[in-house]
Amino acid sequence: MNMTSSYDKTHALHAAEHVDPARLIGAIDALATIGARSDGGVDRPALSALDIEARRTLIERAQTLGCTVTTDACANLFFRRAGDEDLPPVMTGSHIDTQPTGGRLDGAYGVLAGFECLAALADAGVRTRRPLEVAIWTNEEGSRFQPGAMGSSTFVDPARLDGFRTVRDAAGVTFGATLDAHRTAFPALDTRAPQHAHAFIELHIEQGPLLELADTPLGVVTGIQGVRWHSVRCMGAAAHAGTTPMAVRRDAMTLAVRVRGAIEACALALGGDAARITFGSWNIEPNSINTIPSTVTFTVDFRHPDPAVLARFDAALKNCLAPHGADVRLEPLFEHAPVHFADTAIARVHEACDALGARSQPIVSGAFHDALHLAKVCATAMIFVPSRGGISHNPLEATDDADLVLGTRALAHCLVELCNEAR
Amino acid sequence: MNMTSSYDKTHALHAAEHVDPARLIGAIDALATIGARSDGGVDRPALSALDIEARRTLIERAQTLGCTVTTDACANLFFRRAGDEDLPPVMTGSHIDTQPTGGRLDGAYGVLAGFECLAALADAGVRTRRPLEVAIWTNEEGSRFQPGAMGSSTFVDPARLDGFRTVRDAAGVTFGATLDAHRTAFPALDTRAPQHAHAFIELHIEQGPLLELADTPLGVVTGIQGVRWHSVRCMGAAAHAGTTPMAVRRDAMTLAVRVRGAIEACALALGGDAARITFGSWNIEPNSINTIPSTVTFTVDFRHPDPAVLARFDAALKNCLAPHGADVRLEPLFEHAPVHFADTAIARVHEACDALGARSQPIVSGAFHDALHLAKVCATAMIFVPSRGGISHNPLEATDDADLVLGTRALAHCLVELCNEAR
Repeated sequence: MNMTSSYDKTHALHAAEHVDPARLIGAIDALATIGARSDGGVDRPALSALDIEARRTLIERAQTLGCTVTTDACANLFFRRAGDEDLPPVMTGSHIDTQPTGGRLDGAYGVLAGFECLAALADAGVRTRRPLEVAIWTNEEGSRFQPGAMGSSTFVDPARLDGFRTVRDAAGVTFGATLDAHRTAFPALDTRAPQHAHAFIELHIEQGPLLELADTPLGVVTGIQGVRWHSVRCMGAAAHAGTTPMAVRRDAMTLAVRVRGAIEACALALGGDAARITFGSWNIEPNSINTIPSTVTFTVDFRHPDPAVLARFDAALKNCLAPHGADVRLEPLFEHAPVHFADTAIARVHEACDALGARSQPIVSGAFHDALHLAKVCATAMIFVPSRGGISHNPLEATDDADLVLGTRALAHCLVELCNEAR
Repeated sequence: MNMTSSYDKTHALHAAEHVDPARLIGAIDALATIGARSDGGVDRPALSALDIEARRTLIERAQTLGCTVTTDACANLFFRRAGDEDLPPVMTGSHIDTQPTGGRLDGAYGVLAGFECLAALADAGVRTRRPLEVAIWTNEEGSRFQPGAMGSSTFVDPARLDGFRTVRDAAGVTFGATLDAHRTAFPALDTRAPQHAHAFIELHIEQGPLLELADTPLGVVTGIQGVRWHSVRCMGAAAHAGTTPMAVRRDAMTLAVRVRGAIEACALALGGDAARITFGSWNIEPNSINTIPSTVTFTVDFRHPDPAVLARFDAALKNCLAPHGADVRLEPLFEHAPVHFADTAIARVHEACDALGARSQPIVSGAFHDALHLAKVCATAMIFVPSRGGISHNPLEATDDADLVLGTRALAHCLVELCNEAR
């Protein structure tokens, strides 16, 4: 048998055509009942009883689809459809934990689209060279246990797990205790060692407005922008609002407003249209109506896809603050370099969009995703579908059904093509 | 006996000369031990056990000075030195409650200087036509029970007391319960009905930097500036800091910073050097490092001695906000018209300064005082002494001993002159 010809390109389209809209939307609706909020949103904390219940329904579904289900030391779940050859699998998936006031799609869509691909391949009778695996990554949101993306980051760097196990949630429960409870909840699952993957494709809602504004149903995600988080502390002197003349005041908020303006101007000048600069968190002391603010601390969140721009921002930030001497202090909180996805994987996403005759456009992810970590160990890319109004992490989070279906068809096409790669 | 000649002007100077620096400073030091903080400040909440203890020491001291001590329905205390005639008394005094991180002088100085005057008049053998009364006004600071100045405002408007009695402190204790406990603590004190006063002179630290900057030891306070308190609510839309392009953001903090700037410019243009504009309290929602602020609420504290400027500010404020439509909402919180003290009482303070050969200057009080309320019912004025560094409501609050003594001498002079007025 000629292996090359037996995995020809018609198989990918054939699989995509077998994506069943009603089954996909029904699965999304069903999962959203587990942790449903009265406002239409979902509150399903990582490794909570609700998360365990949701995982149980997906394990049962995977077994009816003939998949083998395994877990690992970080409670990630892997649903594997066998391939014809014993090669590293092609992976997809995302997460099913949510923000406390989360929506129905963030994470869940990528997992359930993966399941829909498993079902569509079965319905289409499509066999693949490589195994296809859907993953559920543990605690992506980071709202119960910090940091986020514990599951995917442990998958690529298992040494991180020891540190994560001692992290506690707001109620004092350790992440380690919830991992043990997960193990107890699913005693039949084999725990596997880290395995090499051939590729990873994550399908996700955009969580921003760009695709909707461009009226484009599919985003070919070329990477994830880099980020710098800083805290800026501006110092003045508390004094009585009624007795202190303007000329002798040292108002920390006046200083903070000036510094904020300088940083913003600098970020926009350096970063152009791709720059994202946000001053989201503020602490004002003593925060009293009739006292001049003595100390104002605010955060800086700067993002850009170009590492050179991020480096120039670091230098410019110091220059912005220098004129204020000891009155302004900068504390770096966090940084992450931009990630550029694998050209080979990006090409497979483009190919899928073209094969479906769907409009698509390249897009850089503004948010972090599990794909950020997978990109370190295998050919990784993402597919975005539009977020209505750009809204996410919100019960109002929504995407048109047609876009959800189209995204899943693109994923199916892409996965079959990758699964049939010989190397 | 010729009454006019028996109260001649030498008596006032004679009384002032009998002010005893060691006794005055000793009394200030002694009172500061009750509620002393380890940082040198004082924390003596209104009608707390510490306040009761402090009141007990002053009642005992007044009795040794031959004064009659009475209280009223709001736990104000009155220490009366008899006059020769049955005429309305001349009053002085202030308060002995403090801010939680308060200093040794705010309020306490005015009360203890009043006691020093009682002692100095006794030492000098000076008799006066009218009675002289030192008052301790209850809960001036407003930090345990709000609003402040409950004692003095009830003195001039007894109908306010019913509303005050139901106010609770942070621990849930009503003001009424603390008044009852005060009554129980001092069962021997007669409770008196409101009485008419001939005049009220309050000696206080400036709580601002003007006298120190001018190197002038005495301020002749001509009034208290008026105030407008507002809350300004700026509305935007929460969105992801990473995924939302700058052009489509509705950042409530960006809006708030713009509105703050417009209000400040407007206040300074209208009010000139006498304007005080403060944006002291801020609330940012959701206040998360990676979320664009959706709502920012901040307070406006505008003060000016000229009622016409305050009225123009009210109108200008609306104009500042109008361009932003429904995105910016204004809520008035509080206002107080400027108070101009009685010219007759101001003249007595000037006269005292001149008689002592002390440098003085007119000054408008930037802070509220019990005198604000007394001014409604009798000839009222105030004397200020410098605050080192302009600092108050702070453990670092301080005034040079020489200035504390000079202020007390001016008070003694002033009180004797007022006490000898026939009408």
